[in-house]
Amino acid sequence: MRIAVLGLGTVGRHVVAAIDSERELFRSRLGEEIEVSRILVRDPDKKRPQSMQDRTTFAAEEILADPDVEIVVELLGGFEPARSLIEAALKAGKSVVTANKEVIARAGPALSLQAQPGADLLFEAAVAGGIPIIRSLQESLAGNRLQAIYGIVNGTTNFILSRMQQAGASFADALEEATRLGYAEAEPSDDLDALDAVRKISILASLAFGGWVDVDAVAKEGIRNITEVDIAEARSLGGVIKLIARAEATPEGLTLGVSPTLIPLGHPLADVQGAQNAIYVRGEPIGELIFQGPGAGGPATSSAVIGDIIDAARSRRVGGRSVALPREPAPLVPLGRHAHAYYLRLRLRDEPDALALVAQAFARAGVTLRSVRQPMHLGGAATISLVTGPTRRAQLEEARLALRRSPAVLAEESLILAEMEPV
Amino acid sequence: MRIAVLGLGTVGRHVVAAIDSERELFRSRLGEEIEVSRILVRDPDKKRPQSMQDRTTFAAEEILADPDVEIVVELLGGFEPARSLIEAALKAGKSVVTANKEVIARAGPALSLQAQPGADLLFEAAVAGGIPIIRSLQESLAGNRLQAIYGIVNGTTNFILSRMQQAGASFADALEEATRLGYAEAEPSDDLDALDAVRKISILASLAFGGWVDVDAVAKEGIRNITEVDIAEARSLGGVIKLIARAEATPEGLTLGVSPTLIPLGHPLADVQGAQNAIYVRGEPIGELIFQGPGAGGPATSSAVIGDIIDAARSRRVGGRSVALPREPAPLVPLGRHAHAYYLRLRLRDEPDALALVAQAFARAGVTLRSVRQPMHLGGAATISLVTGPTRRAQLEEARLALRRSPAVLAEESLILAEMEPV
Repeated sequence: MRIAVLGLGTVGRHVVAAIDSERELFRSRLGEEIEVSRILVRDPDKKRPQSMQDRTTFAAEEILADPDVEIVVELLGGFEPARSLIEAALKAGKSVVTANKEVIARAGPALSLQAQPGADLLFEAAVAGGIPIIRSLQESLAGNRLQAIYGIVNGTTNFILSRMQQAGASFADALEEATRLGYAEAEPSDDLDALDAVRKISILASLAFGGWVDVDAVAKEGIRNITEVDIAEARSLGGVIKLIARAEATPEGLTLGVSPTLIPLGHPLADVQGAQNAIYVRGEPIGELIFQGPGAGGPATSSAVIGDIIDAARSRRVGGRSVALPREPAPLVPLGRHAHAYYLRLRLRDEPDALALVAQAFARAGVTLRSVRQPMHLGGAATISLVTGPTRRAQLEEARLALRRSPAVLAEESLILAEMEPV
Repeated sequence: MRIAVLGLGTVGRHVVAAIDSERELFRSRLGEEIEVSRILVRDPDKKRPQSMQDRTTFAAEEILADPDVEIVVELLGGFEPARSLIEAALKAGKSVVTANKEVIARAGPALSLQAQPGADLLFEAAVAGGIPIIRSLQESLAGNRLQAIYGIVNGTTNFILSRMQQAGASFADALEEATRLGYAEAEPSDDLDALDAVRKISILASLAFGGWVDVDAVAKEGIRNITEVDIAEARSLGGVIKLIARAEATPEGLTLGVSPTLIPLGHPLADVQGAQNAIYVRGEPIGELIFQGPGAGGPATSSAVIGDIIDAARSRRVGGRSVALPREPAPLVPLGRHAHAYYLRLRLRDEPDALALVAQAFARAGVTLRSVRQPMHLGGAATISLVTGPTRRAQLEEARLALRRSPAVLAEESLILAEMEPV
């Protein structure tokens, strides 16, 4: 079976090298040989191994028009031209394997509608690298009524938060280290500002809850404002701060969001370190499941891509997989409509009645306080950290308004969700 | 699509109830309705919900001869008649979903040879309940060269060991509690003596390493001899004792076994509590993956069974899944051929030179000692716990022979593998 690979970056090279070198393994697993017959590249002059160079082309049309190519593996990244090429391949009756979360999150259902019968669209590598979460949601867990998914699905931000936690590093220093070690890209905004995690949780939620999610409607907050003080305070409060992507089925609709979240030590996601990913799934009848593994990088991503290639090859022999993507839009409900705990750090005027005034402001808004810590005095000002009891966002905003007007409060320095699950 | 369920125990009832009540969910996932049209039961007089009773029959032949039944769900347990019924169903062109690890471990490849084209044999529920490990090995990870699988795959023994660890309970008390709470069966030998775990790791290894494993050739040791003293000593040595099922690809062949193992705190499997299951997988290019979730019980098992039913239903529309089971036998290599650390507890005569004589016996056999603890003195006798350095089993046996002959040693009280991975 002949396949074409579009894009020869880190993942593309891993995939081509693995298929070239493991012919025997694939034949034994699949009963036939797989061969990468064509490779689409953008830069003709780039240095490549000769064996790969011999198969390169700059003309996507050649690949799309080649009737011998049965599977197209899209590893270009970015929205266009990747989306158009995937569409053209599916229309031409070729199966497509992609690691492109942007294309799947924005255009997955539309693309799956374009596919000729027998042409599959597979994207295990688009979410959480080598962790088999897509196939698990589409197949193994398909008989469940899922209730919640919580995930650490961005390795870059988890690496940075882990370094801040373990080494007491500042955000800037941890980012610099992540860039140096290759965990952060030169332009890391998609990771740091949570857009990458939004795409991933949107895909997972769409599969888990059976309606397609509009990524632009998902609430998101990145990690740029997390300071080493917050990390230290979180520890004193018995927790850690992680960038949590969440999707919950509530009676009013789906709640989706990505934000830094203070979770207690002992939670299965609290101990996920470095560039690892982990996904927690809860449903009926399954109960709770946890998947953990490498979420990014050439080797892990190529594992998922190759698994999909094998699946696509098997499936072509029997006429297609027949796993449909949901097409109806999923109604979203803002997270703030549910009661959550929040962590706040405030800078107060260093006066005896400051804390009393703060407590009063919360009490008047009907917000209870679960814990208050007053760790530091800095020349005329004091910092306090506090965690609220369960409160809806509207109530919290009322308290924040009162705090801003209070003569006791100099500034609100942090506001972080302090409970993953609605209370 | 009509299905028949063979056996109406805990899992069977969950499956029938879920399919009856979630028609809408299945139609949306699958594009057609699923209906349980017949249920095979053994005892006609047993009390059952009327809606289920109406569909029962005592004649398997009726079900096998019914052309409208496309999927047979075998939940009888035990080897026969389950194996014969599965064979007959596959020969009749029906797809089979089963949770029967005994039948799959002993007869899986032979059965898959009997299947008519388009008839699938699915068994996700046979290993680790609701954790989607079978499908992950067969599909998502199919492009990997796997190196090792370590698992806690028996919930009964993990519950018992967890209670011994957390509550300081004796084995007998923890077993009694497990029985009372329904985590252990009235006849728990298959669990306690590791036969259940052997069947599961044999199935996983067969799929992961591509050769069928003879369950009778797998080394096994249960947990009946683990005492509260061993658990306490393990903690002092910085570890916990878990019943670990292992499968490793080594240059000489496959190493398989199930045995109590002292693993360090901090290992991903060390913190798996109660009746939970967890499976650690390592391979190239994936790296390390961990799956954790409920390993047994009606709800979790029925999640896996229903996932398989949906998969079988989808697959029948396209002519079968075409995932073959390996048929060649896998060559096994004894674990003892590799160097491992071992934990021993010895009762010594309480004399000043006893420890020196013990150290000498190990030294003469070429076995180094990593740590030695002498915790207790009991009227004229002393107990010591020690962990060896990496040693092959033959060397260890030489040391044990010398210890048995030594006047310093009254008895060897425990011998437990103290390192999961070969060193």
